[in-house]
Amino acid sequence: MVQAALRSGAASRRAVFEVFARRLPGARRYGVVAGTGRVLDALESFRFGDDELAFLRDNRVVDAPTLDFLASYRFRGRVYGYREGECYFPGSPIMTVEGTFAEAVLLETLILSIFNHDCAIATAASRMVHAAGARPIIEMGSRRTHESSAVAAARAAYLCGFAATSNLMAGHVYGVPTTGTAAHAFTLLHDSEEEAFRAQLDSLGAGTTLLVDTYDVEQAVRTAVELAGPDLGAIRLDSGDLGEAAHEVRAQLDALGAHHTRILVTGDLDEHAIAALAAAPVDGYGVGTSLVTGSGSPTAALVYKLVAREDASGDMQAVAKKSVGKPSRGGRKNAFRRFDETGAAAAEVVTVSDVQPPDSRPLQVMLVDGGEAVGREKLDDSRAWHREAFGELPSTAHQLSRGDVAIPTVFD
Amino acid sequence: MVQAALRSGAASRRAVFEVFARRLPGARRYGVVAGTGRVLDALESFRFGDDELAFLRDNRVVDAPTLDFLASYRFRGRVYGYREGECYFPGSPIMTVEGTFAEAVLLETLILSIFNHDCAIATAASRMVHAAGARPIIEMGSRRTHESSAVAAARAAYLCGFAATSNLMAGHVYGVPTTGTAAHAFTLLHDSEEEAFRAQLDSLGAGTTLLVDTYDVEQAVRTAVELAGPDLGAIRLDSGDLGEAAHEVRAQLDALGAHHTRILVTGDLDEHAIAALAAAPVDGYGVGTSLVTGSGSPTAALVYKLVAREDASGDMQAVAKKSVGKPSRGGRKNAFRRFDETGAAAAEVVTVSDVQPPDSRPLQVMLVDGGEAVGREKLDDSRAWHREAFGELPSTAHQLSRGDVAIPTVFD
Repeated sequence: MVQAALRSGAASRRAVFEVFARRLPGARRYGVVAGTGRVLDALESFRFGDDELAFLRDNRVVDAPTLDFLASYRFRGRVYGYREGECYFPGSPIMTVEGTFAEAVLLETLILSIFNHDCAIATAASRMVHAAGARPIIEMGSRRTHESSAVAAARAAYLCGFAATSNLMAGHVYGVPTTGTAAHAFTLLHDSEEEAFRAQLDSLGAGTTLLVDTYDVEQAVRTAVELAGPDLGAIRLDSGDLGEAAHEVRAQLDALGAHHTRILVTGDLDEHAIAALAAAPVDGYGVGTSLVTGSGSPTAALVYKLVAREDASGDMQAVAKKSVGKPSRGGRKNAFRRFDETGAAAAEVVTVSDVQPPDSRPLQVMLVDGGEAVGREKLDDSRAWHREAFGELPSTAHQLSRGDVAIPTVFD
Repeated sequence: MVQAALRSGAASRRAVFEVFARRLPGARRYGVVAGTGRVLDALESFRFGDDELAFLRDNRVVDAPTLDFLASYRFRGRVYGYREGECYFPGSPIMTVEGTFAEAVLLETLILSIFNHDCAIATAASRMVHAAGARPIIEMGSRRTHESSAVAAARAAYLCGFAATSNLMAGHVYGVPTTGTAAHAFTLLHDSEEEAFRAQLDSLGAGTTLLVDTYDVEQAVRTAVELAGPDLGAIRLDSGDLGEAAHEVRAQLDALGAHHTRILVTGDLDEHAIAALAAAPVDGYGVGTSLVTGSGSPTAALVYKLVAREDASGDMQAVAKKSVGKPSRGGRKNAFRRFDETGAAAAEVVTVSDVQPPDSRPLQVMLVDGGEAVGREKLDDSRAWHREAFGELPSTAHQLSRGDVAIPTVFD
């Protein structure tokens, strides 16, 4: 596309691309913007190096003028978008990219890859955090997804309220709090469960979390409290009927005087399983597979569409395709969240007008100017912002069932 | 775990870990081993650098003896496993890692992340390739998944018979053939569809693929053949009822004399949609979202379990946990595929014995010896091997519906 547009001369036309979702996968009530910080990092460093250019040349992927264009490529345009952690709805322009056609079209895969992954994970995470109420959730799904996705997934989970991750790289790169537990392999490694527990307590102290379902849970809990005393930090249950087991273990711990020993449950939990455990004496959840795979919706269905571009006479024109079943709305859009008299969000207003509607707040901020990221936020600030933005939504947003979005999108 | 095991002395016990799936997600008939080559690359270069060690020290993640252990860490053990491209079934030991407990347990997340992602994608890809029959499939899902997963997904798709990918990095890094098509944005960029088609034909020649559903398909096909002549390479349809549209466009192309112009279809295709288009005049498929998300099963549910380890007296002992609903089988296992009198695969034999059963072939090969990869294969050889291994399976493996696995696993 870039090669043909360079040849036709259209490559240098000013263009506006918009990132939005036509629908929310899984018939969810809201989506969560995640990945903005990663997009800004990637966009600033997006270049074609000698290796890449040699590959493109040697394999005749593009012609010589295109190679020259790519060799000097860096994005010099502007980007606006929703703040990371913000909620979004069908049609929300979560990012708007302004530049020449050639410089902006090259960013499609980069931007969509990051948002489609991170928003899918974040949306699942936000639902789980709401389902867990005040109880903390630990992200422990790294081994169930691509090794790099795992780091981004841990970041997205923390953004939406997860307490910590078992992914140390996410701690290193993004400052996400890290934690861990022992696996069954650690118990099996030792000649007895008692020996394994003793080794763990010797090294990590009584505050550690002992995994008690390798052989027999009741026996393991007895051994754990005998060895650690009533100050044992936590036990972890990873199999069986977790609600029933939690009740039994709580009673046993209390009978042994270990009133403050917490019960952490893991094992194929998703937001529905978490909600179903609300009445069980559980103190925390560990979530793996369902988090890193977006709990049934592993991609956010976001698209990157040309909505306006310069014409032959230099005027900006709204453009939109007419494909059956996939209509787009042309024009560079602004977005505002409108509130009702109680202060709850009532509508997502997406409009080609610049005028802010009454009782609303603007949703887009400037993120990149002249190719430089100007809208970076600390991950903890984005995390606080998500809590706030989620809190504004009407209570229908809290429903885990499939259904209508929490607020309608009004195109104006 | 490593810290506590170093302290208890159990860290240096010889250990055997096994990678296997308890079940195949999506009730599929077979799984495809993919990622072995990536595991070998990652394993050879898996080290803890100064940055990582500083993070672990500064955040008191592990104690000083553990930091020393990690600083000099490199895997020095042996690895056996299924060839990349091989088919697998529940219980198949697709990889077996032998080393000390500490050196082998550290590889869990690395190995599982790669296999759980790549095997999920490869299994979906293999089903799509079978559904497409002789028609080529292009992988074009990069924008729907994490930016690094996209590269691995393109590799896994090619392994299983996809013809090419739109992911240039997969071409650069893994030598996967690359191709591309124009997007709607390219048509919308120009002042008319005719101008857009002319620009593309000028730059890429009549052999290119023109996207014809931006405005009106019939008009676009007419314009395309007028401009390109009857040697137009291909047209792409991305919306509407693809089967119906393909019939209409084929008739129109033939009426215009463009008998050799191919019809490429794209747009939310999965293996079922591909199979449903078998009778339509379609010459090739482009698949995105469903490929990179594993077509409903984005992770392969593979686990990494300790199956044997040295005891206090230095003897190797089989070990297995007894957790409710998640039983494991202890002991270091061999695996053989047994054939019936017609030459079709009849059973997966997983056994702690070294004796090869009659009418079978061994499934594990040595992949790593003394920490050095010795089992690398060319991606094209793995691709050929997958075709062969799939061809051995009984015809039940060809069924796209949910159901029983194609051959039973016999534990011996």
